[in-house]
Amino acid sequence: MPSTDSFTGYIGYDPDSVNGNLVKATFNPKVFTDDDVDLKISHCGMCASDLHTLRSGWGATPYPVIVGHEIVGTITKKGKNVTQFEIGDRVGVGAQTLSCLECYDCTHDNEQYCAKCVFTYSSTFENGDTSYGGYALEGRYPAAFCFKIPEELPSEIAAPMMCGGITVYSPLKRNGCGPGKTVGVVGLGGLGHFAILFAKALGAEKVYAISRSEAKGADAKALGAEDIIATQTPGWSKKWARTFDLVISTANNADMPLNEYLSIFKPGGRFVQVGLPESPVPQLTFGSLINQNVHLMGSLLGSRAEIAEMLELSAKTGVKSWVTCYPMEQVNDVLKLMDANKAKYRFVLTN
Amino acid sequence: MPSTDSFTGYIGYDPDSVNGNLVKATFNPKVFTDDDVDLKISHCGMCASDLHTLRSGWGATPYPVIVGHEIVGTITKKGKNVTQFEIGDRVGVGAQTLSCLECYDCTHDNEQYCAKCVFTYSSTFENGDTSYGGYALEGRYPAAFCFKIPEELPSEIAAPMMCGGITVYSPLKRNGCGPGKTVGVVGLGGLGHFAILFAKALGAEKVYAISRSEAKGADAKALGAEDIIATQTPGWSKKWARTFDLVISTANNADMPLNEYLSIFKPGGRFVQVGLPESPVPQLTFGSLINQNVHLMGSLLGSRAEIAEMLELSAKTGVKSWVTCYPMEQVNDVLKLMDANKAKYRFVLTN
Repeated sequence: MPSTDSFTGYIGYDPDSVNGNLVKATFNPKVFTDDDVDLKISHCGMCASDLHTLRSGWGATPYPVIVGHEIVGTITKKGKNVTQFEIGDRVGVGAQTLSCLECYDCTHDNEQYCAKCVFTYSSTFENGDTSYGGYALEGRYPAAFCFKIPEELPSEIAAPMMCGGITVYSPLKRNGCGPGKTVGVVGLGGLGHFAILFAKALGAEKVYAISRSEAKGADAKALGAEDIIATQTPGWSKKWARTFDLVISTANNADMPLNEYLSIFKPGGRFVQVGLPESPVPQLTFGSLINQNVHLMGSLLGSRAEIAEMLELSAKTGVKSWVTCYPMEQVNDVLKLMDANKAKYRFVLTN
Repeated sequence: MPSTDSFTGYIGYDPDSVNGNLVKATFNPKVFTDDDVDLKISHCGMCASDLHTLRSGWGATPYPVIVGHEIVGTITKKGKNVTQFEIGDRVGVGAQTLSCLECYDCTHDNEQYCAKCVFTYSSTFENGDTSYGGYALEGRYPAAFCFKIPEELPSEIAAPMMCGGITVYSPLKRNGCGPGKTVGVVGLGGLGHFAILFAKALGAEKVYAISRSEAKGADAKALGAEDIIATQTPGWSKKWARTFDLVISTANNADMPLNEYLSIFKPGGRFVQVGLPESPVPQLTFGSLINQNVHLMGSLLGSRAEIAEMLELSAKTGVKSWVTCYPMEQVNDVLKLMDANKAKYRFVLTN
């Protein structure tokens, strides 16, 4: 049973909602517990997951839905167990809103893989309540998955890090990104731009953007990449053979040249897919994996410790998300821009 | 230009040779260099690679071919640069016979991934000479890839370790097999039986065989496994979800349930394919990789340091390959047994 409290959000009622048909209306958030906080939402980044979910691209979405999981807001109410925050604190909420906090994964910095993971929207709490995201004026979230935003970080810079940022930060960190390493980033969109920024912030020796064409070359270099590698150039993968220690793939297309990607690694190199395409993995040969000892991996979000670390590193080193802000009132127009791949590189909705 | 020396071997002239049609005949080995040794071959294990190659299963084989890369023999002649061995020493030769020994991979214990890797048969040395394997009475091999067999290890026990053993030992060692770890082994054939033996020798807490049926359960336990997991049992993967740290897959079939295999891991778990099927990777979903942070990997042979280490560990801990020996004269009959999957778990040819 949800609460009888009335919050206001931008609600999607069916797959057509992705075409700019969200409806501003009231909703009943989860029942308030001693472990929760209420937020006045000031910012919410727009993530590709929002569109996948609105259009039921990853399977049938349980409508009605309020998407958005790159949330920054201030605490207006807190449960009595919430001792780490004060009313008025500015916090961020990412794509995960709860886990069991007790299992092996949760107690080993892997909360995002907890079997009882509750996502910030379209997910169900243990009592049956639905989770609602940040395309809203207000939100109610378990404090355990809220993160204090460091003072130095503006809210519009921090918001998109809560999902887009951590999704690439975690695999960079876990797979050895740092001094001496050569890192590639497939796809220069929201996730890709964060991957270049964080790979540099973590001290990678060389970072390359990998894209179909060189169209985004200037952006890639401005973000910190050495250069952009165009996969439409015949022979590109031979030229870059045995080069990379780590590649973060944000590609979202079924026709990605996966076997070619796997040929550009040093032995033991790691290809980490973070975008979740709606299509299956392109046909792969075992030889591609065996002959260079490549790790083909996926990675989901990041742990709570990594989120806190990412925010600190960003504050300390001045990592700046490239964002365009729009009033949340205009969300339906911005959804269309987003679906047309116009974000450079992240849209943030503001109240 | 090969040498004019005349050695005797069992030669395959075409794909039909796999059906027991090898011909005993003379051949000219590579030209003898200051870095080579000549061996009187006493033992040669039979590896699935031999059959793949004889039948051109991995692509067109450059016939005539002499297969066999699990060789043990005694040194009858050595080049003047060969200081590490004496005439009469008993040495093993595996699937790799040379690399450049100078590149980044070669100088970082990754000779098997060297771009100039020369395999023990069907491969070409830099001067154009062909490499010939161990289904023969004599062989000529670069000393850099010969390994002294510890006294405690009988030749028939050591021979199949030179390819079958190291192929699973290396990925076990590199991927954390040891105390506290739960290791699975897909497929209980030649490679699989070594994987159980070495996982135990390396101190894994629990080792499970994973097979279609429970038919080989008694063997699995005798080799050291806790139990055998039958994948034809509906719901098997749900029962074993979140269990494994590492799985070595020796499966060789196109219809392996890969997405199910990927569901039985703890986050960060590693699935390492070592068998090289003639077919491509079964259809995979990115969700299978992302949702549990699984590494899907391949691994090729092992480094020289790992081969030496494996032989030492085997001598020290008493690892015993399960072998059946046949006179090499009967190789054509044994090929048929091998192709019919009758090896339990390795055939060794003896002169």
